[in-house]
Amino acid sequence: MEAHEKGFFTEENSVEVVTGRNRNAKNERLKQVMEVITRKMHEAVKEIEPTQDEWLQAILFLTRTGQICNEWRQEFILLSDVLGVSMLVDAINNRKPSGASQSTVLGPFHVDGAPELEMGANICLDQKGEDMFISGRILDTEGQPIENAVIDVWQANDEGFYDVQQQGVQPEFNLRGVFRTGADGRYWFRAVKPKYYPIPDDGPVGQLLGQLGRHPYRPAHLHYIIKAKGFEPLVTHIFDPDDPYISSDAVFGVKESLLAKFKRTNDPSRAKEYGFQGAFWDIEHDFVLAAK
Amino acid sequence: MEAHEKGFFTEENSVEVVTGRNRNAKNERLKQVMEVITRKMHEAVKEIEPTQDEWLQAILFLTRTGQICNEWRQEFILLSDVLGVSMLVDAINNRKPSGASQSTVLGPFHVDGAPELEMGANICLDQKGEDMFISGRILDTEGQPIENAVIDVWQANDEGFYDVQQQGVQPEFNLRGVFRTGADGRYWFRAVKPKYYPIPDDGPVGQLLGQLGRHPYRPAHLHYIIKAKGFEPLVTHIFDPDDPYISSDAVFGVKESLLAKFKRTNDPSRAKEYGFQGAFWDIEHDFVLAAK
Repeated sequence: MEAHEKGFFTEENSVEVVTGRNRNAKNERLKQVMEVITRKMHEAVKEIEPTQDEWLQAILFLTRTGQICNEWRQEFILLSDVLGVSMLVDAINNRKPSGASQSTVLGPFHVDGAPELEMGANICLDQKGEDMFISGRILDTEGQPIENAVIDVWQANDEGFYDVQQQGVQPEFNLRGVFRTGADGRYWFRAVKPKYYPIPDDGPVGQLLGQLGRHPYRPAHLHYIIKAKGFEPLVTHIFDPDDPYISSDAVFGVKESLLAKFKRTNDPSRAKEYGFQGAFWDIEHDFVLAAK
Repeated sequence: MEAHEKGFFTEENSVEVVTGRNRNAKNERLKQVMEVITRKMHEAVKEIEPTQDEWLQAILFLTRTGQICNEWRQEFILLSDVLGVSMLVDAINNRKPSGASQSTVLGPFHVDGAPELEMGANICLDQKGEDMFISGRILDTEGQPIENAVIDVWQANDEGFYDVQQQGVQPEFNLRGVFRTGADGRYWFRAVKPKYYPIPDDGPVGQLLGQLGRHPYRPAHLHYIIKAKGFEPLVTHIFDPDDPYISSDAVFGVKESLLAKFKRTNDPSRAKEYGFQGAFWDIEHDFVLAAK
């Protein structure tokens, strides 16, 4: 009986006993990952001391989270988002050299195949919302312009919806476009001011947010994917610093360096040049790519 | 802009930023639980440094685990079991006074409404397997017998299946029974030697075990729920110490004190008394209940 003793599970040796079972794991990385996950889970359980009923509530929450997932809804990604795990993974995978623009979450609304447009095009196809002019440069960390950088942009409309959320209401590829820089590294296009919007909050994650006294809103932003030969791709947003939710993004995507200035501008000659009726929002924001 | 600065998420302040959002939680306990879960998850992510692809694999594993659950299958409980979390929660909720019998997991195969039988009855209804005689006493921590203790027992058959897993093959309530002690606190009944069996291993949890080089087996055991007025209910097993999986129970349910002696016995007069054809397995095991 003494020979067995070591192997039996107790409150004290729980981590060693469970992770000790993985000595023949087929994959060293999985073994390492499961060692950390097991240890941290056991630490959490020992600190929380859940009742049997609390443990069961957690089991049922995870089950509901899995069961609401389908082709177009991923509630576990949402859970990862609202607990800051997605942004943490993003941060770890995108540690940039000094001076390079910071990344943030991709989000679920990117669409492949948006049309490549002439620089300056208006990506708002339904004339709804407040006119906006966005411009800036794509630079390397030495401040030199990057030619042939491809800029994929997408955003919500003035009601907080992406085109894919309002099929039949918004035109296809509304508020989406792909642009390519010339030798001066400059980009510019026209759009409308985006609005804050809630993440899907009618499922288990929304219920959790409600219980935690948290709102489900993301502050208004424009999405960018910027790629250029010889540089690390950049997946990021720019945010409106005056948005009511700028300090409480439900998914923690905001970074100081991603705040753009949304400047209300009344300049009849520029408005005429852009085809705008009157005052418009003017944004200028440069992006700096890290060399590969 | 400086006023916002504190609130933005970074790799360094990630735990404080996320848990700081819960200041208006509707439930202090939930707030406390989520503080620990968030902190331990972020610690795990920072230690693991998952790639984006590894993070997505984890998301998809959890999703599959939720989606395979149904009325009769609970894959998240299974995951909790194979990671030692269920036994840890059991240990935390059943810290016993010195001398009281230890608990272990309930398992998914308990059935309400098993028949109350006369002491000594044979719970094996189909005559398959090796005869076994089980006896012992229900005692308090002073060693005094407990009268009117109700003992609910259930076990797998000699092929490792419970009746509910083989409906139409095994008789209803095969290898289940409820017994009640007299003034001497003694119990005894007849059965057949149970066999080890695998936990359900055709889903995500079974795949994980396979990748980790772990087998899915539980060593042979008998289940007990013992209740008596004025005492804490006891949910436990007794195990066969000679089982090939006794030191590697897939769900970590084995404890030193739950090892019973399965004694091979050739005693013609006792065999005749019990209605057995020849040699049989003889088990004697006492249980000690903690006063409420």
